[in-house]
Amino acid sequence: MRPVRFDPAFTGEVFLGATPDYGEARAVIYGMPMDWTVSFRPGARLGPRRIREVSVGLEEYSPYLDRHLEDIRYYDAGDIPLPFGNPSASIERIRAVAGRILDDGKIPIGLGGEHAVTWGPVQAAASRYPDLVLLHLDAHGDLREEYEGETVSHATVMRRAVELLGGDRVWQFGIRSGTREEFRFAREHTHFHPFEVLPGLTEACAALADRPVYVTVDIDVVDPAFAPGTGTAEPGGISSAELLQAIHLLRGLRVVGFDLVEVSPPLDPTEQTQILAAKVIREVLLAVTESAG
Amino acid sequence: MRPVRFDPAFTGEVFLGATPDYGEARAVIYGMPMDWTVSFRPGARLGPRRIREVSVGLEEYSPYLDRHLEDIRYYDAGDIPLPFGNPSASIERIRAVAGRILDDGKIPIGLGGEHAVTWGPVQAAASRYPDLVLLHLDAHGDLREEYEGETVSHATVMRRAVELLGGDRVWQFGIRSGTREEFRFAREHTHFHPFEVLPGLTEACAALADRPVYVTVDIDVVDPAFAPGTGTAEPGGISSAELLQAIHLLRGLRVVGFDLVEVSPPLDPTEQTQILAAKVIREVLLAVTESAG
Amino acid sequence: MRPVRFDPAFTGEVFLGATPDYGEARAVIYGMPMDWTVSFRPGARLGPRRIREVSVGLEEYSPYLDRHLEDIRYYDAGDIPLPFGNPSASIERIRAVAGRILDDGKIPIGLGGEHAVTWGPVQAAASRYPDLVLLHLDAHGDLREEYEGETVSHATVMRRAVELLGGDRVWQFGIRSGTREEFRFAREHTHFHPFEVLPGLTEACAALADRPVYVTVDIDVVDPAFAPGTGTAEPGGISSAELLQAIHLLRGLRVVGFDLVEVSPPLDPTEQTQILAAKVIREVLLAVTESAG
Amino acid sequence: MRPVRFDPAFTGEVFLGATPDYGEARAVIYGMPMDWTVSFRPGARLGPRRIREVSVGLEEYSPYLDRHLEDIRYYDAGDIPLPFGNPSASIERIRAVAGRILDDGKIPIGLGGEHAVTWGPVQAAASRYPDLVLLHLDAHGDLREEYEGETVSHATVMRRAVELLGGDRVWQFGIRSGTREEFRFAREHTHFHPFEVLPGLTEACAALADRPVYVTVDIDVVDPAFAPGTGTAEPGGISSAELLQAIHLLRGLRVVGFDLVEVSPPLDPTEQTQILAAKVIREVLLAVTESAG
Amino acid sequence: MRPVRFDPAFTGEVFLGATPDYGEARAVIYGMPMDWTVSFRPGARLGPRRIREVSVGLEEYSPYLDRHLEDIRYYDAGDIPLPFGNPSASIERIRAVAGRILDDGKIPIGLGGEHAVTWGPVQAAASRYPDLVLLHLDAHGDLREEYEGETVSHATVMRRAVELLGGDRVWQFGIRSGTREEFRFAREHTHFHPFEVLPGLTEACAALADRPVYVTVDIDVVDPAFAPGTGTAEPGGISSAELLQAIHLLRGLRVVGFDLVEVSPPLDPTEQTQILAAKVIREVLLAVTESAG
Amino acid sequence: MRPVRFDPAFTGEVFLGATPDYGEARAVIYGMPMDWTVSFRPGARLGPRRIREVSVGLEEYSPYLDRHLEDIRYYDAGDIPLPFGNPSASIERIRAVAGRILDDGKIPIGLGGEHAVTWGPVQAAASRYPDLVLLHLDAHGDLREEYEGETVSHATVMRRAVELLGGDRVWQFGIRSGTREEFRFAREHTHFHPFEVLPGLTEACAALADRPVYVTVDIDVVDPAFAPGTGTAEPGGISSAELLQAIHLLRGLRVVGFDLVEVSPPLDPTEQTQILAAKVIREVLLAVTESAG
Repeated sequence: MRPVRFDPAFTGEVFLGATPDYGEARAVIYGMPMDWTVSFRPGARLGPRRIREVSVGLEEYSPYLDRHLEDIRYYDAGDIPLPFGNPSASIERIRAVAGRILDDGKIPIGLGGEHAVTWGPVQAAASRYPDLVLLHLDAHGDLREEYEGETVSHATVMRRAVELLGGDRVWQFGIRSGTREEFRFAREHTHFHPFEVLPGLTEACAALADRPVYVTVDIDVVDPAFAPGTGTAEPGGISSAELLQAIHLLRGLRVVGFDLVEVSPPLDPTEQTQILAAKVIREVLLAVTESAG
Repeated sequence: MRPVRFDPAFTGEVFLGATPDYGEARAVIYGMPMDWTVSFRPGARLGPRRIREVSVGLEEYSPYLDRHLEDIRYYDAGDIPLPFGNPSASIERIRAVAGRILDDGKIPIGLGGEHAVTWGPVQAAASRYPDLVLLHLDAHGDLREEYEGETVSHATVMRRAVELLGGDRVWQFGIRSGTREEFRFAREHTHFHPFEVLPGLTEACAALADRPVYVTVDIDVVDPAFAPGTGTAEPGGISSAELLQAIHLLRGLRVVGFDLVEVSPPLDPTEQTQILAAKVIREVLLAVTESAG
Repeated sequence: MRPVRFDPAFTGEVFLGATPDYGEARAVIYGMPMDWTVSFRPGARLGPRRIREVSVGLEEYSPYLDRHLEDIRYYDAGDIPLPFGNPSASIERIRAVAGRILDDGKIPIGLGGEHAVTWGPVQAAASRYPDLVLLHLDAHGDLREEYEGETVSHATVMRRAVELLGGDRVWQFGIRSGTREEFRFAREHTHFHPFEVLPGLTEACAALADRPVYVTVDIDVVDPAFAPGTGTAEPGGISSAELLQAIHLLRGLRVVGFDLVEVSPPLDPTEQTQILAAKVIREVLLAVTESAG
Repeated sequence: MRPVRFDPAFTGEVFLGATPDYGEARAVIYGMPMDWTVSFRPGARLGPRRIREVSVGLEEYSPYLDRHLEDIRYYDAGDIPLPFGNPSASIERIRAVAGRILDDGKIPIGLGGEHAVTWGPVQAAASRYPDLVLLHLDAHGDLREEYEGETVSHATVMRRAVELLGGDRVWQFGIRSGTREEFRFAREHTHFHPFEVLPGLTEACAALADRPVYVTVDIDVVDPAFAPGTGTAEPGGISSAELLQAIHLLRGLRVVGFDLVEVSPPLDPTEQTQILAAKVIREVLLAVTESAG
Repeated sequence: MRPVRFDPAFTGEVFLGATPDYGEARAVIYGMPMDWTVSFRPGARLGPRRIREVSVGLEEYSPYLDRHLEDIRYYDAGDIPLPFGNPSASIERIRAVAGRILDDGKIPIGLGGEHAVTWGPVQAAASRYPDLVLLHLDAHGDLREEYEGETVSHATVMRRAVELLGGDRVWQFGIRSGTREEFRFAREHTHFHPFEVLPGLTEACAALADRPVYVTVDIDVVDPAFAPGTGTAEPGGISSAELLQAIHLLRGLRVVGFDLVEVSPPLDPTEQTQILAAKVIREVLLAVTESAG
Repeated sequence: MRPVRFDPAFTGEVFLGATPDYGEARAVIYGMPMDWTVSFRPGARLGPRRIREVSVGLEEYSPYLDRHLEDIRYYDAGDIPLPFGNPSASIERIRAVAGRILDDGKIPIGLGGEHAVTWGPVQAAASRYPDLVLLHLDAHGDLREEYEGETVSHATVMRRAVELLGGDRVWQFGIRSGTREEFRFAREHTHFHPFEVLPGLTEACAALADRPVYVTVDIDVVDPAFAPGTGTAEPGGISSAELLQAIHLLRGLRVVGFDLVEVSPPLDPTEQTQILAAKVIREVLLAVTESAG
């Protein structure tokens, strides 16, 4: 009996234009709906599903890149079911999923969720690409030694990454908030480009041409005017147009993994944050599946 | 290559507990995301997806009925893609889908959407069950001869049904709003039980034991206090507890089709309307797959 | 040149069904958009306009009363422009407007605004009807001697009325909040029916058959479940169905003035409060223009 | 009997400063409250009334233009009552209204509503000004051949205009979203200025000095940060300051008609979109009644 | 130098009427702002502070009990700083605080926060009152053996309590949702009064006259119409008036501890849930400090 | 008995990092929760408490200034209890508080509340610093002779200041809205820098090196995109980054008082306005306690 079944993209079950065929996909979208170590304003667990939902309102064609989603293949795996309130078990599960995707020769495109989730795919990518470089766009350094007694949280994730990769393989852009200690540490250890994104990222692109690169974008790198739906909004950021330009710069790199985190839909009834996130993912898909390979 | 893919119910892609196997399903849930003839407050197009989304917050067990969703089989077909702004083409598409489900020997469980959509499955069911009886729970009679120049709209759908089935095969419960003409028409032609639901419905159950029955519930039969997320809220309705009791009465009937309409999530930031709707659907699934057959 | 001009009721400029002819009107709706002495949650200044706006979603026919708005004549004067932040000048202006309406032989139907505004029409009615009786439906006694140093505010308005009319001509229903002193005062001086409305109001109707009556309803007499959009919500009130029944009891009285106050639309995104208020006004118009005369 | 009646602008019944005398008006504001072909997020039907409502919060003086609304005359006709869910009948009714206004020698200033409504006044103006030129500010090209089976919708309206006027008489500014086909068509047929507004518009002003011009502005030409209340928000747009500058450029043109569409108040609880829209209309009134004639 | 400092209750820093003198207090209010094991809709971490904030809108006098907050003494300790995302450390910290309060001879009045927090004060009270009885008002049984791999969570807290105290010392009221297994367990082990509250609670009061009693109230025992701001709303509950009556019944008991949990302000923009919670706490303070001792 | 009491900054009772020791404080934060003369959209009374609440989400370190809140001392006095609906008594009370703080040798940092409140601290500072200069950042001139019959309101406050200080001691920046008369007055009497802030402010800093300066910032000087939560939003303003730069310029001045007004949290569900306000206050504390003295 042939089932009655309608297009899953229509109601946001999968990201706009995703193929139902995992095998042929070059990239794999997956959700990391975790927000339990968020300090003040939870809600990021709804990020992935709302980004998918609004994606259907976008065009599949990018006039910026003159490329079309039909020309590429990517799969949407849905959201990883995570154990509520257990950060370490959650991150371990995410690490395993990202590893599976990498082992299948595909690019993991993660949707968060709070920034602590990035620790999963970064570990997975580092173990498969020994010379991995990490690019980090964010308002916050996330470089604390520990936070509220935890060594892995949204506030410490980049410190862990520096320990894993060495600071020389970590580039940070747009940082405009942190402890004095975090700024000092960043200035000493990472490629640190505070306040601005495009100049530093252009420099990184020139330096990293053939290196495998993992890119993590915290939506709060953008000013709250353009992305109010995020847990720790920080006034004074870049515009959404600048973030799109940054994504377009990625075409020149060999991106092996990407995530976009801290989209918190309950905090933005206008939905502009989710819509920006969906547009960023569309541009990433078009930019990254072109360059990687 | 085995795809990475997570449970679709987790993020509300399908209703809680739905089987992925259409063939074995006794009932089929489908969405009718139409709200273009809504007069004042659109938003019901988002009803089906939000009902699915919140369903995951419910238990699968009903302590009212002492039954469990695991004991029954139902499928979720997703939302029917409808042509925006074209009511007649939309309803025709819905009619065809409901017909397909009926022809496959299954019970269609429709999620609306504005009430005009009911005209689709009612026609489909009437053509397959010549002695079909229609039960209608609503704040509004929906018995206008025409509305804003249209013969099929949310305000006329029951008039069309009376023309199709004859008033003697139409029962109406809970009606507390309409034109003087609609109330006069109802009193003369239908089994009319205004203001209250349970007494009349009990009477109907006694009278209709073996007849095939289609049940349509407009969520606004419930007072706005219990279901504020609806396009034409009408104060002075029954409680949500009474609606659940009404659903439980359906166990004594041979229900061949059901729909729940006018759930408009953008109008209810508390989400209680959607949660009530999901609970009603759970109870309907448990009550109707028991009785029908 | 004949102006291009569309129906003002369509966009809520006037209350549903209002006549453009002041002269023929039996009742006159007017708005009192004041909320500057509100203690905690302002917003009631938007009450009158939002009540008008949602009124267009109601039917003009009342199945409760079997009466139709077409059968009666009432005018909508719009909102009185009030000096922001100046309560005494505002109330004086309201008093003058209500007096004008009474002098024209019509029934003033006021929409609030905070409860302090009632002091305007009560003074106006008392000066024209020496034996005026005041009926007061509210969660709060509003019987303070003074409040925050002011003698006229939403918390003192009924105390002023008792001083003006004598406690024997004041009936209070549904009161469930106040100071110990207010409850003591009410028990000693007014016809005091705390917690409940219908039994006491039935008693009042029997006692007051021919007396001129002014009725003031604070929407918070209803439980917040049925009317969350109000400045000082007080759990444990009557249902909206009971309020509608109370309005229907007014048919037996000679109502010379009416107001409905404390509707605060910004506090109720579901709009159910405004919709209830509009329905109450419809029923009042049908009940009061029948009885008064 | 002199009616009690208060200033209709106070509660937003008419736009700030509108004259009650149609005959003397140089421009006529009218609402087109249609949103039934909107694809994803309805609500634009409330645009016109909310723009009026917030207009009372603006000053009547423009320090940008050093002009004052008291110096000019314009009338507000209210919202056109449109048949819910019937796009073609709605647009026909709008066309007739705009034609009436043009025949009376006045400039129609339309408030939307979804962009499909523009098809009404454009037809009306084209039939009266054979050399009409159309200026189009928008995030989307709206150049589809058809959309969801309909030839007239918000996504096709400019394609219809190109067919009517010829592409040479259509200028498009700020477009940053569309199908590949739409961008190709625009590049071949219209005066196409994607992504930016001011450079192209300056060029248009130089080229079109004496030509009759109709200007249609989709509020989504502005970035969602400045106008989140719109149905298909598209990140990466111009700022509100740039839109105001664009309006000021219109002083050099002979504008015979104008509309501002896709303002969707339910999507913007902050109301900034409506406030921007009202300010744009104020500047348009001051700029256009000066230049046209 | 005498500091400039204003009344902390005015802005909701402490609960209405709280004494600044810990020593003289008979009861101590404290917040448990934890929501990290919440399954679907976080936000309860804001419960305690918003309950305090709206408390200033209440009267200090209860006309139900004819008692006044001035007649009693209670202290507000503020919110316990909890380690984000670490449930076991959080509960341990709460246990210690509640123990301190009990050791000081005072009644702990906890504000949640998700229901898992109750495990802290219940352990504290049980270790100090060997014959402690637990009264549990809730929509959910919270009797799971484990949940998502955790043994202490909002879904298991009562199971842990039964293990600690024995089912014979646990009374449950109003339960209307759970697994089949939970209902079976409750029927076999606890004093189980599903669906209703008042009859069973009256029975409990008669049976428990002199026993030390800890009372935990999940706000979702009330129907979502009366308390929509809660994480797992369950339609079909009791009214807010019934909950107030239940609180009044506590006067007959020796209450040694109390908590009210699952108030989630971000889910209720009308604030009625928080206001109900504040009123419940007022009545608890008046009822419990009277009876306990 | 040592009280159980938790950190008051954790739940927003005091501003991030405030000392509990008034005596050692160099600056004193105080709230002015008044909004009763607001014309259209009340809510600013909640500004102070919500600014405090979100402050806990900020870092205590400023990477812009490379300074840390731990290095300075400031006290938070809470909100001044003001008589609802009585502007003149409210402003008098504020004047007295600001005077007390000045007399204690500290810098008053006021949080509004509507702009009328500034009249309090300006009078207090002027009486203590005979050569006081006033810097005013705002979208509106606030220079009306009177407004709605009142001489002191949010629309007249700067006119009163000019009368008190003389126009030569008043500098205005960023003004983009007002009556024709206000703009004329400003151009003739004050140091008037309309539309922009930074160029004029740089000029002022050069001119005013040793003069005692009071700075008042209306949050609406910023574009609504960056600060939508304000009563009379005016599109076309500066960015939040520019406002932060303006604050940093204050380091070169001798600031003796400061206020930030018109933050209206109910109008901004995204909370970005409050967060911007808190960040401005952090930077002011760091900039001003450095320079003043």
